[in-house]
Formats: sequence, structure tokens, C-alpha cells
Amino acid sequence: MTEPRTALDHVRIVLVQTWHPGNIGAAARAMRTMGLTQLVLVSPRQFPDEEATRMAAGGEPLLEQARVVESLEEAVADCGAVVGLSARLRNLALPQFEEGDEMARELMSLAEDMPVALVFGRERSGLTNDEIACCTHQLSLPANPDYPILNLSQAVQVCAHELYRAWRHRHADQKSRTAPADIGMQSVREKDLPPTREQMQHFQQSLATALQEAGFLNQPHAQTLERLQNFYQRSSPTRKELSLLQGALRALTRPSDDT
Amino acid sequence: MTEPRTALDHVRIVLVQTWHPGNIGAAARAMRTMGLTQLVLVSPRQFPDEEATRMAAGGEPLLEQARVVESLEEAVADCGAVVGLSARLRNLALPQFEEGDEMARELMSLAEDMPVALVFGRERSGLTNDEIACCTHQLSLPANPDYPILNLSQAVQVCAHELYRAWRHRHADQKSRTAPADIGMQSVREKDLPPTREQMQHFQQSLATALQEAGFLNQPHAQTLERLQNFYQRSSPTRKELSLLQGALRALTRPSDDT
Repeated sequence: MTEPRTALDHVRIVLVQTWHPGNIGAAARAMRTMGLTQLVLVSPRQFPDEEATRMAAGGEPLLEQARVVESLEEAVADCGAVVGLSARLRNLALPQFEEGDEMARELMSLAEDMPVALVFGRERSGLTNDEIACCTHQLSLPANPDYPILNLSQAVQVCAHELYRAWRHRHADQKSRTAPADIGMQSVREKDLPPTREQMQHFQQSLATALQEAGFLNQPHAQTLERLQNFYQRSSPTRKELSLLQGALRALTRPSDDT
Repeated sequence: MTEPRTALDHVRIVLVQTWHPGNIGAAARAMRTMGLTQLVLVSPRQFPDEEATRMAAGGEPLLEQARVVESLEEAVADCGAVVGLSARLRNLALPQFEEGDEMARELMSLAEDMPVALVFGRERSGLTNDEIACCTHQLSLPANPDYPILNLSQAVQVCAHELYRAWRHRHADQKSRTAPADIGMQSVREKDLPPTREQMQHFQQSLATALQEAGFLNQPHAQTLERLQNFYQRSSPTRKELSLLQGALRALTRPSDDT
């Protein structure tokens, strides 16, 4: 099933260190009901498992195709956006989505061209600071202040429902304009795409090294590096811009006897 | 907890002849996370039950207050609207909602003044013809045509999420028209202000000089400088960020015999 499905197939649902195999199964089912296919498990406590299979019902194929990895970095390295669901920890440097539908529209737009990820944390403790640092955005699903704790697979269902709806509406809009003029709607040029997580990380690392060697990070409490890295993260450079920034950094740090 | 909550308390979630007590518990949890309180069970197969309590987690109070009745008629007699969820049977005489958010807006509007109900059928067979005849509307949650079968409690979660959002948006609209909205809005700290045009120009000039001297601008047609300056311009650095960028640039271009 070719073209219209590609965007949904670009959506990666990443579950980090899930405790209850039943939640993994229920998440797979939720994904399947909403046309999603890519399940990634970061160090699940117990998988494969009968309980996962039982709860998956018709989502069982997703369990069979699920990718199991050992770190979140590995799970999302090639993703253009990584949205972390977080009820507890808010990293204010990251762009925040306040509603599921905002998140879904933006993610499904990007998903036309490259993989994107939605990351769910542990049942009890959510995501760690380091894991949130892997993300490009955060989403907080608004919930009852007296009891905001959705079951993990329920949160997956709600998000999957939003993503599927956003996808349907994009394609409905496109279909409703069908006329030969729409044939050949240009795909976004690669240079205008967001960089992958890996490319961004590489730049952030080069920045850190360059500033360290230049003696600019001599006041740890000033959080200079964090602030600058946050600036570049939230500026969302395109791939082209990032490559120019990387080039500029290299040019500025080239030893003088190399020029 | 008086006036603004009444509309949510007017929403009755009705589960008809649920087979798995776990689904009742998970539904109660889903309701609680989205501020709903009124659970009604029509002839549940097994209730109360340990499995229901376990799956309910923080939704347990809803189980304790749940009303158990013997017919759907009894459950919804005083309701101003009764929306039946149906994937299978469509009664074309009933008004249909094609999306969860349409249903939620209409239901929450009515719920300001009177009880309303959302009715979920049996896990395997949904609602009977007679039960659909009890309804004033039907809702079909759009789902993957290859596998549209959401778990019962997941469907409750999705609908509860829609209802809570519709309620919040109604009340946000109202709040924004009340006067003391500015109380507690902190004044923006200076460092978070945008830089002056002069400060920005100074940075852009420093950037140009540094890159020129590093030999990075040796291909005028590549518009390297323009692209990088555009990047920094559209990134809208705060004053603080700009001062860090300026400092970093200075540190990177400091002649090596100065360190």
C-alpha cells in the first residue's frame, strides 16, 4: 500500500524501559488501530512475553516487527523530530506542545519526508533528564490536575489517534484539490529538511569542543554551553544551515598555520 | 470545586455488559485522568472485581461510586443526549459524528445544563439494535480500515480526552474575557528581551569579519554569509543569548598568542 501510507510508516513509537509487558502489547494494539507500524523498545524489562501478545490482539504483527535497542539515542538517531511525552519534568529549553493535535499536525507534516519519533517513558518515573535531552520537543497531554497519570498504553492510544487524524486531514485536503495541477506537488528539498538527531548532536559536540579549547567555558555555574546549545536547538536550523554552521565552526577553529 | 466542574460531572460514561473487569477498571482510570466522574455499568459480567480495582489505579473512587443498572434505558433516562459508539452497526436515522472532537464540542455544550451520556458496547459485539435505538447520536471513531478495533477502555480514553479538551477550550474562552487575567503575569526580565537592532547588527558584523578572516567566504556565489546571517536573524536570540554568541565568537577568533 504505497504513497499515502508512507507518512504513517515514518512515525516511530518509542517505549523506554517499559515494566509491564501488557502495556507493550496494548500499545501495539493502539498503534495498529490508528495505522502506525513502527514500534521501538528501549531495554524493555520483559519482552517478548505472553502478556504482551495477549494484550496486542490484532496488533501482534507490530510486536513481531518491533525493534529492540539499548539506548534512546540509538532509537532516534535518524529522526527529524523527537517528541518526548512528559507529565513531570519540563525542560524549558525545548519547544513545548500544549495539545496533542498541535503536536500531531507538526509531526505528520515532517513525517512526509523523514522518520519522526514519539517517546514514552517508564510507567512510574517517566523519562530521565538525559532522555529528555535527546528530544527536540516535549508534549504534555493536558489532564485532570488531581490525577493526570494516564496508563502508558492509553497515552499511546490518544497520541496515535491524534496522529491518524492529522494524517487523514492532510490527505483529505490534498484529495479535495485534485486536478491535474496537483500532480507533481514537489517534495520538500532535502536541504530544507531538519537535520537528523545525529547531525545535530555532532554539531553540538563540535561546539562544545571548540568552546572548551578556546577557554570560553571556564565558569561552569554560568551554564554557558547549555544556553548556547539550547539556542541552536530551538533555532531549528535546516540541514543546509547546520552544514554552514558546522563549516563556519571548523573554519574558525582551524589552527592558524593551516590557512 | 463548584461551577466550572459541573459540566464534566454531567457526563455519564455507560459501559454495556462489559466482559472483562479489567476493562472496567481501565475505563475508570481513563475517566479520572480527564476529569470525568460518572461511571454507569449496565449488567457487567463480573463486578466488583479485583482486576477492575487493580487496573483502575487512581480511578478507584469512580468504581466505588459507579452505578450498576439492568438496562440502558435506565442508565440514560434523564440524559439530554446519548451518543452511542459504534464501529459496526450504523443506524442511519441517527445523526452521526465523524470525529471525536465534533462529538465532544456538542456534548460539552449540552452538558453545561443537563446530563449527557456516551455509551460503549460489549467488547466483541458492540451495541444491539435496541440499544442504538436508545441513542440520540452515533459516533464512529475513524480508525485503520485494516484493524479498527480499539480496546474498550482505549476508546473510553480517547473520548474522555476529547471531552476534557472541549471543556477546557470552552472555559479558556470564557476566562480570557475576565478582567484579572494579568494578575501574576511576570514582567519579562531584560535578558530575555530581544536585542536592539544595534546589538544585532554588531554581532552580524563581527560574524562577517571573523568568517572573512578565516577564509570561509571565498565563494561569493554560495551566499554563505547571507545564509548564516539570516539564520541568526530568524532565530531571534534573546539579549543574553546574543551576548553569549558574541562572547563565543570573540573567544574562537582570539589570536592564539593571547590565550
